[in-house]
Amino acid sequence: MLDNLFCCISEPGDAVLLPRPYYAVFEFDVQCKAGSTIVGVETVGVQPEVKGVERYYPTLKGLEKARDSALQQGLNPKVLLICQPNNPISVCYPKHVMELVWEFAEKHGMHLVSDEIYGAGIHAKQADFWSISRLAADKGRTLGDYVHVIYALSKDFASSGLRCGMMYSENQQVLKSMRKLNDLCQISSHTQWGLSRVFSDTEWIEDFLSKANSRLNDRFKLVKKSLEPEGVKVIEAEAGLFCWLDCRSWLEENTWDAEKKLYQQFFDEAKVLLTPGYSMRTEQPGYFRCCFATHEEVFNEGMKRLKDFGADKLRIEELEEESDDWQTGKYGKFPTTT
Amino acid sequence: MLDNLFCCISEPGDAVLLPRPYYAVFEFDVQCKAGSTIVGVETVGVQPEVKGVERYYPTLKGLEKARDSALQQGLNPKVLLICQPNNPISVCYPKHVMELVWEFAEKHGMHLVSDEIYGAGIHAKQADFWSISRLAADKGRTLGDYVHVIYALSKDFASSGLRCGMMYSENQQVLKSMRKLNDLCQISSHTQWGLSRVFSDTEWIEDFLSKANSRLNDRFKLVKKSLEPEGVKVIEAEAGLFCWLDCRSWLEENTWDAEKKLYQQFFDEAKVLLTPGYSMRTEQPGYFRCCFATHEEVFNEGMKRLKDFGADKLRIEELEEESDDWQTGKYGKFPTTT
Repeated sequence: MLDNLFCCISEPGDAVLLPRPYYAVFEFDVQCKAGSTIVGVETVGVQPEVKGVERYYPTLKGLEKARDSALQQGLNPKVLLICQPNNPISVCYPKHVMELVWEFAEKHGMHLVSDEIYGAGIHAKQADFWSISRLAADKGRTLGDYVHVIYALSKDFASSGLRCGMMYSENQQVLKSMRKLNDLCQISSHTQWGLSRVFSDTEWIEDFLSKANSRLNDRFKLVKKSLEPEGVKVIEAEAGLFCWLDCRSWLEENTWDAEKKLYQQFFDEAKVLLTPGYSMRTEQPGYFRCCFATHEEVFNEGMKRLKDFGADKLRIEELEEESDDWQTGKYGKFPTTT
Repeated sequence: MLDNLFCCISEPGDAVLLPRPYYAVFEFDVQCKAGSTIVGVETVGVQPEVKGVERYYPTLKGLEKARDSALQQGLNPKVLLICQPNNPISVCYPKHVMELVWEFAEKHGMHLVSDEIYGAGIHAKQADFWSISRLAADKGRTLGDYVHVIYALSKDFASSGLRCGMMYSENQQVLKSMRKLNDLCQISSHTQWGLSRVFSDTEWIEDFLSKANSRLNDRFKLVKKSLEPEGVKVIEAEAGLFCWLDCRSWLEENTWDAEKKLYQQFFDEAKVLLTPGYSMRTEQPGYFRCCFATHEEVFNEGMKRLKDFGADKLRIEELEEESDDWQTGKYGKFPTTT
C-alpha cells in the first residue's frame, strides 16, 4: 500500500522525511518502486535537555534540520511520513505534535502521510490518540489534497497473512492512480469476502479489540515488571505489539559495536531475539524493541531468560541521557547490517 | 507477476516486442512500473500471401521490422514477449515458431518472456503445445539467464480471484529481486495454504483439467457451429476460454469506424459484449474475441442473439484477406478507446 502511494506522490530525487527511530522497512517501501529516499528526522538529538518520552516527539528544529539536510543532498523534500502510534516507541503523539507536523508539511507544500497501522491497537488507558482525521475533525476542516492516511489489518487484527492494507485520501488524482495500481496487487476475492463478513459484525470487532488490547496491556506490564529491576528502562507503551527498552546499562561500552555485541549475546546466550536500535535507525546505541505478542509460555520463557541474562550481566554505571547523532561517530562506527 | 518481472529486466527507454494481435493489458504491465514500451510485432501484415492460422505466427521479417521500429523510436529492444497459447488467437505456436523466437532473442541479446497462462487449458486434440521449457528439454539445454516463464491460476483453474501468479526462471539475479518484490504483493497465506492442499491432489487436478478442457472444446465447437453459417469465420481454437471471430462480412465498410460501430451494435442490439480487434491491437478491422466460458444458459442465449443479429445483418461481399497495417490509415482513423 505504502509503496503504491509513494509511486503516486514521489519520484527519484525526492526525500521522505521520517522521525527517528523508525521501522526501517519504510526505506524499502519508499525506495523500491518510487525511487525516493528516506531522510531521518532527529528527535532525541535536537533536544538534549528533554527527558522521558517527549524526547522522541518530532520538533520543528528536527524537521527543519532534516529538510535542510535533504536539500543539501540535492533531494527535494516532498513528503513527511509519520508513523503513529509509533513503531518502535509504541506511543501516540500528543495533539500539539500532530498539529506541528501538519503545519510543517503545509508550510512547505509537502505531502503528509500518516501511517496509523497501530491505530486500533491502543491498549493504555492514558493514551490520547490524535489520528490525523481526528485532528481534521477537531479543526472543522477536511484533509485536503496533501494528507493521506494508511491503515492495515496486519497488526491490530493479527492478520498479517491476509495482506490487507487500505488508504484514505481526498486527493482524486491519487485515488484514481491507486485504484489502477491496485489491479496489480489486489488481495484474493475470498479474503475480501471473508473480511466483509467479519467487519459487518461490529459487536464482534469491538469485543475482539477490547480483549486483545487489554491482553496487550497486561503483557506490557509484565515486561516492565520483569526487566526494570534488571536495570532496563521501559517507555510506557500505549499501543501495538511491542515496547521500547533502554538496555544501555547492559552495554559494555557506549558504542554501536557494543550494541551489536549485546544483540548477539541476547541471541546466543539467552536465545532471545530483540530488534536492535540501529536497525530502527535510533540515534544512540543500547535500545531494543521487544515484541511481546506471542504465546504465554513462549513469552514467560523469554522474560525469564532476559531476567537471568540481566542478573549475570556486569552492570556499568547508569548513563546520562545523551543526544548526539550516531552519524557523528561519537559512538563508534555504525555497524553494517548483517 | 509480469509487472514485477519487467521491473527486473527492463527500464524506461526499453522496448518490449510483442506479436500482434495481443492482450492490451500487457501495455499496462510493461509501462506502469517498469516504464517500458510495447512495440507490436506485425504478423498478418508481413506475410500477405499466407492464409489460415499461420498468418498469425510471428516471423523473422516481422520481428526484425519491430526491432528496427523500436530503434527508430529511440527505444532499446530489450525483451521479446510471447503469449502462447495465444490470447486472443487461442492457438499454440508450432515448434519451429518457438525456435524462431528463441533464436531471435538470443541473437540480439534480448530477454525472452514466455507467458504460458493458458498452458494447462489446451482443449483441442490436434494441439501440439511447445512450452519454452519443453523446447529446452527437447534441445537438451537449460533456459539460461534470458528466458523467463510466466504462469497463473486465473484462467486454467478459473481462479482469477485468487490472484496467484508464478514465474520460473534460472536467472539468480532476477529470482532474488522477484523474491524481494513479492514482499509487496504476496497472496494471503490462507490462500497459499488452500492452494497447497489443492495441488497436492494430483488426481483431482488431472480430473479437473480433463473435464474443464473437454467442456471448453465442446463449447468452442458450438460457437463455430452457430456462427459460421452466418458468415463468421472462426479460427480453430486450441486453448483458453475464447476464440477469434472474423466478422468482416458483418462490417458495413472495411474501416475501424465500422468495427467500432459493429461493436456498439453487438452491445446495443444483441446485448452481447465481444472484445473488438482494435483493443487487441489487431492489424485489420472486423475481428472480435468471443469468450465462451460462462453458464450454459447465458452462453446459449448469447449465441442465439448473435445468430439473430447475423441473420438480420446486410451481408457485404466476402473480403479478400488483407494485410496492410492499420497504422497506414488505409482502414480510416484508428478509433480512440472510449
